[in-house]
Amino acid sequence: MPDRVIVKLGGSVITEKSGPCRIDRKRLSEVSRAISRRKGMLLTLVHGAGSCGHPQAARYRIQEGVDGSNRQGITITHAAVAGLNRAVVQALRREGVDAMGLHPLHLCVAEDGRIASFPLEPLERLQALGITPVLHGDVVADRARGASIVSGDQLVTFLAAGLACSRVGVATNVKGVLGPDGKVVPRIDAASVRDLPLGGSGARDVTGGMRGKVEELLRLAGQGIESHIFHVSRLGAFLDGKDHGGTIIGKR
Amino acid sequence: MPDRVIVKLGGSVITEKSGPCRIDRKRLSEVSRAISRRKGMLLTLVHGAGSCGHPQAARYRIQEGVDGSNRQGITITHAAVAGLNRAVVQALRREGVDAMGLHPLHLCVAEDGRIASFPLEPLERLQALGITPVLHGDVVADRARGASIVSGDQLVTFLAAGLACSRVGVATNVKGVLGPDGKVVPRIDAASVRDLPLGGSGARDVTGGMRGKVEELLRLAGQGIESHIFHVSRLGAFLDGKDHGGTIIGKR
Repeated sequence: MPDRVIVKLGGSVITEKSGPCRIDRKRLSEVSRAISRRKGMLLTLVHGAGSCGHPQAARYRIQEGVDGSNRQGITITHAAVAGLNRAVVQALRREGVDAMGLHPLHLCVAEDGRIASFPLEPLERLQALGITPVLHGDVVADRARGASIVSGDQLVTFLAAGLACSRVGVATNVKGVLGPDGKVVPRIDAASVRDLPLGGSGARDVTGGMRGKVEELLRLAGQGIESHIFHVSRLGAFLDGKDHGGTIIGKR
Repeated sequence: MPDRVIVKLGGSVITEKSGPCRIDRKRLSEVSRAISRRKGMLLTLVHGAGSCGHPQAARYRIQEGVDGSNRQGITITHAAVAGLNRAVVQALRREGVDAMGLHPLHLCVAEDGRIASFPLEPLERLQALGITPVLHGDVVADRARGASIVSGDQLVTFLAAGLACSRVGVATNVKGVLGPDGKVVPRIDAASVRDLPLGGSGARDVTGGMRGKVEELLRLAGQGIESHIFHVSRLGAFLDGKDHGGTIIGKR
């Protein structure tokens, strides 16, 4: 059985996060080359929205609940992040990876902001054929709120457990989780996280920034799955199972 | 409870079917205007692939089964019809319809060419918020064949039953089902269909042409749901419940 691996590309890694939707195509090419060189694993990619989705979600106040008054924010937010997804898929395909975008909005239903239903069979069957699925943080229908945002980080947690992945890699634009001294914290668990002063990752992030990331990954650690947060330039090292100089989130 | 209606736009209605993918944007605008003028119903749209998907599906022999040798046909076929879907959605949105594309590939699994799993909750919840879902014939993962084509006609049958629709309209580029005398057959049922010399609807259609359409709709008739086949220019009449001059497929 090939190694099942999930890689999350942070929204701030593949977009310029401060302005309107600007896709970092050079970064996408580098990432795609690193992935195309590694064979023999079942890879699932998840990316964040960055500036291609967060501003729209915030403008329409999606996280406060959706009804007739702000319903149009669903299609507008989704269109922004789906456009980014197409760019990610195209970059991978140019490097020879048979990538395919899968939109959570089309198949997932949340309940009060958490994934409640997400059939995995289409993804698993496409992957078994040799296709690399590329998912993303998205707005989805929500049983309690009309619609809500399911972040890339939440997706990673859900998919890692649902697909029984062996490793999770989170590629960011920092070296790892930084401590108060500005140095990478090499390891975090459910106990040590309480002492870390984790802030948000910047403006316009409606899904919780670095604290959100770590909290999602600690859920996985509780299920025995280790996650790795590292600078995107070290993606190859992570995929090869080598030292990436970042943070490992694991069990105590 | 508002009227639940499904409208199928034939692939040959919205594309030039003989050449490579050419979208009939004028036709899409007319259709979108007719839909935007009718309020107060829960509408689901389904469209065929026409020249934006059929040639790709045929070239990669998707219907003969998919494995490592022709796997790339999945992403290529899907990309073609997803591009057409974006054009349909854009045309509707320009006329004020809050339309959203939903790709069967993302959520549906077939078994030997027939839909085996298709969660309806995302579609129903988005529709309840006022969004008009726009689905399309697509390549999907298949438990028996690796992947297969689920035609727009099969989708219409499945959704009409699953969503408990009251009416199904199939907009084509002919007046209805034509008999041997060239005139519209006003009514077809499971018994009378055997006497009709129905052929395919033209080249490059891997999903069965007019005979395929009628056979799918007869399944619905068996469940007590009447379908209407009419020229696309009569879409408004169908939506208004008026005479469209076409064929009604119903129970004996």
